[in-house]
Amino acid sequence: MKLIIAIVNDEDAIDVIDLLNEKGYRVTKLATTGGFLKSGNTTLMIGIEADKVDTVLGIIEETCKTRHQVVTNPSPLSTTTGVYVPYPVDIEVGGATIFVLDVDNFIKI
Amino acid sequence: MKLIIAIVNDEDAIDVIDLLNEKGYRVTKLATTGGFLKSGNTTLMIGIEADKVDTVLGIIEETCKTRHQVVTNPSPLSTTTGVYVPYPVDIEVGGATIFVLDVDNFIKI
Amino acid sequence: MKLIIAIVNDEDAIDVIDLLNEKGYRVTKLATTGGFLKSGNTTLMIGIEADKVDTVLGIIEETCKTRHQVVTNPSPLSTTTGVYVPYPVDIEVGGATIFVLDVDNFIKI
Ligand code: NI
Ligand code: NI
Ligand code: NI
Repeated sequence: MKLIIAIVNDEDAIDVIDLLNEKGYRVTKLATTGGFLKSGNTTLMIGIEADKVDTVLGIIEETCKTRHQVVTNPSPLSTTTGVYVPYPVDIEVGGATIFVLDVDNFIKI
Repeated sequence: MKLIIAIVNDEDAIDVIDLLNEKGYRVTKLATTGGFLKSGNTTLMIGIEADKVDTVLGIIEETCKTRHQVVTNPSPLSTTTGVYVPYPVDIEVGGATIFVLDVDNFIKI
Repeated sequence: MKLIIAIVNDEDAIDVIDLLNEKGYRVTKLATTGGFLKSGNTTLMIGIEADKVDTVLGIIEETCKTRHQVVTNPSPLSTTTGVYVPYPVDIEVGGATIFVLDVDNFIKI
C-alpha cells in the first residue's frame, strides 16, 4: 500500500479529482497555501495498492502538466502614451509536486 | 515512532479527538473535504510510539465505526399524491480510512 | 528524498516559512488546529534531499524554539479590591513537533 501526496494548482484540482474518481480512485483534499507552486495550491492524498501507483501518477501528470497559456493582458503596452493596447501574454500554468510514501498499515472501517 | 493519518467523518472527529486526548494522545486536525467518505471529513495526525499503534487504532475504530442510524425523512413518500408522510430511513454513518506511516525521525522542541 | 512534516505555532509560521524560502527551500502550508501545541498551529510540508534534513531541522528549531516571553497582563491582580493593576506575566511560546518521513518516489512536473 502506498500513500500519494500530490500538491497541485488550485485550477487543476477539480479536473484531476474528477478524473481519479471516475477511474475509481478516492481522493482526500487538503486546503493548502503557497510554497511549491506560485499560485494557490491544493494537497491531495490518495491511498492505493503499489501496483496502481504508476497509473495514478500518469493521470496526475497528464492533468496537471506545466503548459503554456496565452492570456490577453489588458494592461497598457506603454504607460508613456497612456493608450491601453491589449496584447497577448504567454504564461506558464499547472505543475505539481508529488511524494509517494510507503504505508506500514492501511485500515478501512 | 509511527505517524497515524486518519480520515474520519466530521461528526465523529470531536468525539475521537476528545477520547484520544483523555488517554494522553495528542492529535493534529487538518481541514479536509470529500473523497474517502461521502460526507465532510477531517484528517487527524497522531504521532506515537510503535507499541501504542494498536491502542490508538482501537480507539479510532471503536469511535468511528460504520453504523446504521435511523432518521425520519420529511420528504414526501409519494410525490403523486402531494401528501408528505414522514417515514424512517436507515442510513449508514461513520467510517474511517487510516494510514500508518513509519517515521524516520521525530523531534519535539 | 525526505518529507518533513512540521507542526509549528501560528505566530512562528510566517518567520520560518520566510527563512526557509530565503535559503531556497519550498514549503507547503496546511491549515491546522489544536493538538500538539496549546495555541493555533500550522502544519508545514517540506520535501528535501536526505543530506539537507539537518540544515532544515536546524532552521525550524532555531525559529520555533520554546522561549519565555513577558507580557503585561491587563487583568486585575485582585478582584476583591476592584483595582486593575497591570503586571508582567512570564509565558512560554513557540515549540514544534516534527516528523521526518522517508519518500519512496518524488516527482516534480
Ligand atoms: Ni515552458
Ligand atoms: Ni451496514
Ligand atoms: Ni521554559
